Amino acid sequence: MMPSELAELLARRRAGWTLPQAFFNDPAIYRRDLERVWRTGWLFAGHACEIRQPGDFFLVEIDADSVIVVRGDDGAVHALHNVCRHRGSIICTEPAGHVNKLVCPYHQWAYDLDGRLVAWRGMQPELRKEDFSLHRVHVREVAGLIFINLARSPLPFAAAEECLAPLFRPQGLERAKIAKTVDYLVKANWKIVWENNRECFHCNVNHPQYTKANFDHYNADDTAPRIRDEMAAAAAHVETKWAAAGIPTHKQTGMTKFPDAERGIWFSANRTPLVAGWVSESMDGRQVAPLMGDYRDPDVGTLRARALPNFWNHSSCDHSVSTRLLPAGPQLTAIRVWWLVDEHAVEGRDYDLSRLLPFWQLTSEQDWLICERQQRGINSSAYESGPYSTFKEYNVEGFVRWYLDMLARES
Amino acid sequence: MMPSELAELLARRRAGWTLPQAFFNDPAIYRRDLERVWRTGWLFAGHACEIRQPGDFFLVEIDADSVIVVRGDDGAVHALHNVCRHRGSIICTEPAGHVNKLVCPYHQWAYDLDGRLVAWRGMQPELRKEDFSLHRVHVREVAGLIFINLARSPLPFAAAEECLAPLFRPQGLERAKIAKTVDYLVKANWKIVWENNRECFHCNVNHPQYTKANFDHYNADDTAPRIRDEMAAAAAHVETKWAAAGIPTHKQTGMTKFPDAERGIWFSANRTPLVAGWVSESMDGRQVAPLMGDYRDPDVGTLRARALPNFWNHSSCDHSVSTRLLPAGPQLTAIRVWWLVDEHAVEGRDYDLSRLLPFWQLTSEQDWLICERQQRGINSSAYESGPYSTFKEYNVEGFVRWYLDMLARES
Amino acid sequence: MMPSELAELLARRRAGWTLPQAFFNDPAIYRRDLERVWRTGWLFAGHACEIRQPGDFFLVEIDADSVIVVRGDDGAVHALHNVCRHRGSIICTEPAGHVNKLVCPYHQWAYDLDGRLVAWRGMQPELRKEDFSLHRVHVREVAGLIFINLARSPLPFAAAEECLAPLFRPQGLERAKIAKTVDYLVKANWKIVWENNRECFHCNVNHPQYTKANFDHYNADDTAPRIRDEMAAAAAHVETKWAAAGIPTHKQTGMTKFPDAERGIWFSANRTPLVAGWVSESMDGRQVAPLMGDYRDPDVGTLRARALPNFWNHSSCDHSVSTRLLPAGPQLTAIRVWWLVDEHAVEGRDYDLSRLLPFWQLTSEQDWLICERQQRGINSSAYESGPYSTFKEYNVEGFVRWYLDMLARES
Repeated sequence: MMPSELAELLARRRAGWTLPQAFFNDPAIYRRDLERVWRTGWLFAGHACEIRQPGDFFLVEIDADSVIVVRGDDGAVHALHNVCRHRGSIICTEPAGHVNKLVCPYHQWAYDLDGRLVAWRGMQPELRKEDFSLHRVHVREVAGLIFINLARSPLPFAAAEECLAPLFRPQGLERAKIAKTVDYLVKANWKIVWENNRECFHCNVNHPQYTKANFDHYNADDTAPRIRDEMAAAAAHVETKWAAAGIPTHKQTGMTKFPDAERGIWFSANRTPLVAGWVSESMDGRQVAPLMGDYRDPDVGTLRARALPNFWNHSSCDHSVSTRLLPAGPQLTAIRVWWLVDEHAVEGRDYDLSRLLPFWQLTSEQDWLICERQQRGINSSAYESGPYSTFKEYNVEGFVRWYLDMLARES
Repeated sequence: MMPSELAELLARRRAGWTLPQAFFNDPAIYRRDLERVWRTGWLFAGHACEIRQPGDFFLVEIDADSVIVVRGDDGAVHALHNVCRHRGSIICTEPAGHVNKLVCPYHQWAYDLDGRLVAWRGMQPELRKEDFSLHRVHVREVAGLIFINLARSPLPFAAAEECLAPLFRPQGLERAKIAKTVDYLVKANWKIVWENNRECFHCNVNHPQYTKANFDHYNADDTAPRIRDEMAAAAAHVETKWAAAGIPTHKQTGMTKFPDAERGIWFSANRTPLVAGWVSESMDGRQVAPLMGDYRDPDVGTLRARALPNFWNHSSCDHSVSTRLLPAGPQLTAIRVWWLVDEHAVEGRDYDLSRLLPFWQLTSEQDWLICERQQRGINSSAYESGPYSTFKEYNVEGFVRWYLDMLARES
Repeated sequence: MMPSELAELLARRRAGWTLPQAFFNDPAIYRRDLERVWRTGWLFAGHACEIRQPGDFFLVEIDADSVIVVRGDDGAVHALHNVCRHRGSIICTEPAGHVNKLVCPYHQWAYDLDGRLVAWRGMQPELRKEDFSLHRVHVREVAGLIFINLARSPLPFAAAEECLAPLFRPQGLERAKIAKTVDYLVKANWKIVWENNRECFHCNVNHPQYTKANFDHYNADDTAPRIRDEMAAAAAHVETKWAAAGIPTHKQTGMTKFPDAERGIWFSANRTPLVAGWVSESMDGRQVAPLMGDYRDPDVGTLRARALPNFWNHSSCDHSVSTRLLPAGPQLTAIRVWWLVDEHAVEGRDYDLSRLLPFWQLTSEQDWLICERQQRGINSSAYESGPYSTFKEYNVEGFVRWYLDMLARES
């Protein structure tokens, strides 16, 4: 695709309407997305508790880019391209594990956990080891969440940290453990998955479990007074209570306004009440694991966060669910969902997967099915842009604006 | 592929010789085929008896284009692009079924069976529902066969109807039922499948079942006098008999001349005798199901029809077999074969699939194997155009001329 | 890819450093490789003993090109493109077998075993059979090894024959039989497989079996005096002995220098001693099958040969192992490994596969895993060229120079 063709496509985009087909299935646009979004933005990689000890690592695969996220000897998290500087072999061959050094399995070039080449055999003396460190990837750890950035000069992270750190502090994700991960390969462009995530207009019919627990499928334009009163009461109730307990929140009960392309906001978080009687996003609203972090009372609603282009999290008093998207092709998105519980919780004694998983497993899989259907329809020669509801899909339009801004940035 | 490259390829085509390799495996030519042939021509979709009641529907997938063929409340057949005008999701997610309205599973935009948008939630009042009907596809029903056309201004259908209607009338396909369908994904370009269909030069060795029942593997140039006499006797015998019974026919016993690019003929049908003693295209020539339609005597030979680019049918006194091609990639063709019997016939009592299917199942699968072998050879760098037999492959050359005419049309 | 883009890529190549990414995964470069390397060079096809009798054949699939290698009625080996000159079908549909004539399964055009068209049906008399022979492929048989060449005017073969014939003579491959073949589909570009083959720098850690038997993982720069003495002793021992027995050799105990791009050397062979006490490349160094060919004493070291772009062989006194690469996509290589033993050896009596196979099966599969890991790393956007060791990877650089020379040749 020539820049002029992209410019023409962008010019054809009508504000408030869905993107033209090529944005969802053209390999050239997909390559542009990799460059301008995935190799520019901050990507959620995984959780600090997955790599507690120096030498613990996991891999993140962003299309063809494999990144090693490893706890260094100094206790800090490092992120390194998983590509040996000798002949290009991957170094870590398993998706996660423990290493003392990063040793390439091909010719045993050995790197420290921060990527410095420390040993090689048989190379000519005129070459200098310091020129062959593993390519480093920027990394930030905030409240137990690890973000990486493949750009040379990444966008600033400080504002995201300021937003996420206080809200996640009481959740105690650093003191959590992974109860379960489930991996999906969804046959849809990654933007379709986000557009689905950015509205709850589809929730009533598609998410019977989710809508029992939450308020955010209600919108200002069509919500009955009774519901509005219920929402206000829930908000008032928890506001006082949470303030007393020192639990930070934001006064938002409906759908969060996010992202904000104009102000460069690619992250957000807020705490919101659940419906009366629910203390956890579980099938029946009851607690399904011990309280996490600093919580002493289960009535903490849900903490939610989202960060573009690849992360969202819903945390209840007793468990936390993270979702990570990774692009795997123009019409393919690799999605991992993690369920975390307190690090001391013991399966079978303190929690059962059969009670912990279904709420978000069902809700997630309902969404993946929706996304695959939308991809199929968009691939049709009859597809044309349709209008977003200004009442219910403003955040989808917000996402599209954010995306187009990223695409237009000078790399 | 630039227009100039296509023009060069077309210029290299030698009349009477097979097409150059690119026509069989180049993605750009395939996209051109979709545009100029598949989104321009009349496509066989399925049978009227598959959607008897208002709300009955089935889908047709032409490469990435999904079309809903549905019986409307008025009893007429409608064809609609299966793409919601809101955000592009497919609307019908199952290959066939029954609906009252066409309701998009994503946000429940609801359309009438003729495609008019009748309900949506939460959209801004300045938008008008009448601007968001499902995109309509032209449709014609003739003698129980449903054809669709994706073009804005389709080629005329009247002549095809005049040809097919009287010949199919006595077969009674509207009063038939589907006994069985079998789906194939054949690893060959769709044109290879047609070229195979357009000659019976390959029948002697490859189709032991077919050649027992039929005359059309005989050609004028090499047929022994005894066979010619047998063919003439068969023709004379049935001509009188069919005239008396009011069964329309054409005086053709050999291979039909079809298509006729010069006269724009993309369809044809004729009735032809079977060999003496055979009343059905079954393994032993005996009747395998009750008489269909208006037939009172099994001795009706076979009715055959073909319509470019995607349909042929062989009908005996007791059953009818339809074959539909759909393009699924440069080297991939999705083929469905239907076996139909009288609507009142009961499986196990009136017919057995083990006797009904083999004749055409074997013959079809023999052809798919041939096609896949031809595709493999054509993909070789050593492939070059070869000559068609002017005695036996004139219809293949006719097909190629028709195809090249379609390709050259202004879209 | 435009010639200018390739020129730019070639200009970016730094001597002594690995090739840029595009050479390992770009479809345009892959097509260029097919043209300039695979349809220009001499390819190992298989063994003479696989087609002992006139009419015995096997197929070789070079990407989309299928070639029939067949023993003719005159006892000579012929190689023919497996593409009927009529409509392009493949003619031989099984990977190996026996035929009297080459008869196309579609319309029975029949060719002699040397490719001359001898029968067709129904073609117009103005066409001449002699214009429709199967396209011939150049073929050479040397010491039981069959090489083919798809070029019109192939590179000379005489020097290769002069090199290979005397060294392979005593091995008696013409009087061998195939004990086993194993096929692999390795997810790596074919050049990655060669680069792996062209150094034993990786052997110490990756090939525990191989390094027990051989000396060639030792290099002049870092080998202890004890090992050097051992190598010299082994060489001196066999030199005298082999000379007395009339077994040709080359005085090389380390890694052979190969290929030599400057002198156009794409083939080489040499005999080299095994470590003391080993007479066969088997798991324990003991003989695993009867002596082959002219050998009367098992102490013949190993005969090795390699020919670019697709062959290597290791032969011990009792068995011979051939490896053949064929390109199957930009990131896919089809590899076959053959184990040959004396033609009179009987499985279960004279040899067991469980003792014959493991040495080379394990070593081969260790290499394929390495290759797939290197491909994965090279696909990363973070991959950049790295330096070859001038001490240990000179042959890899030699391979790259040979490859780039081939690529730059006028076709």
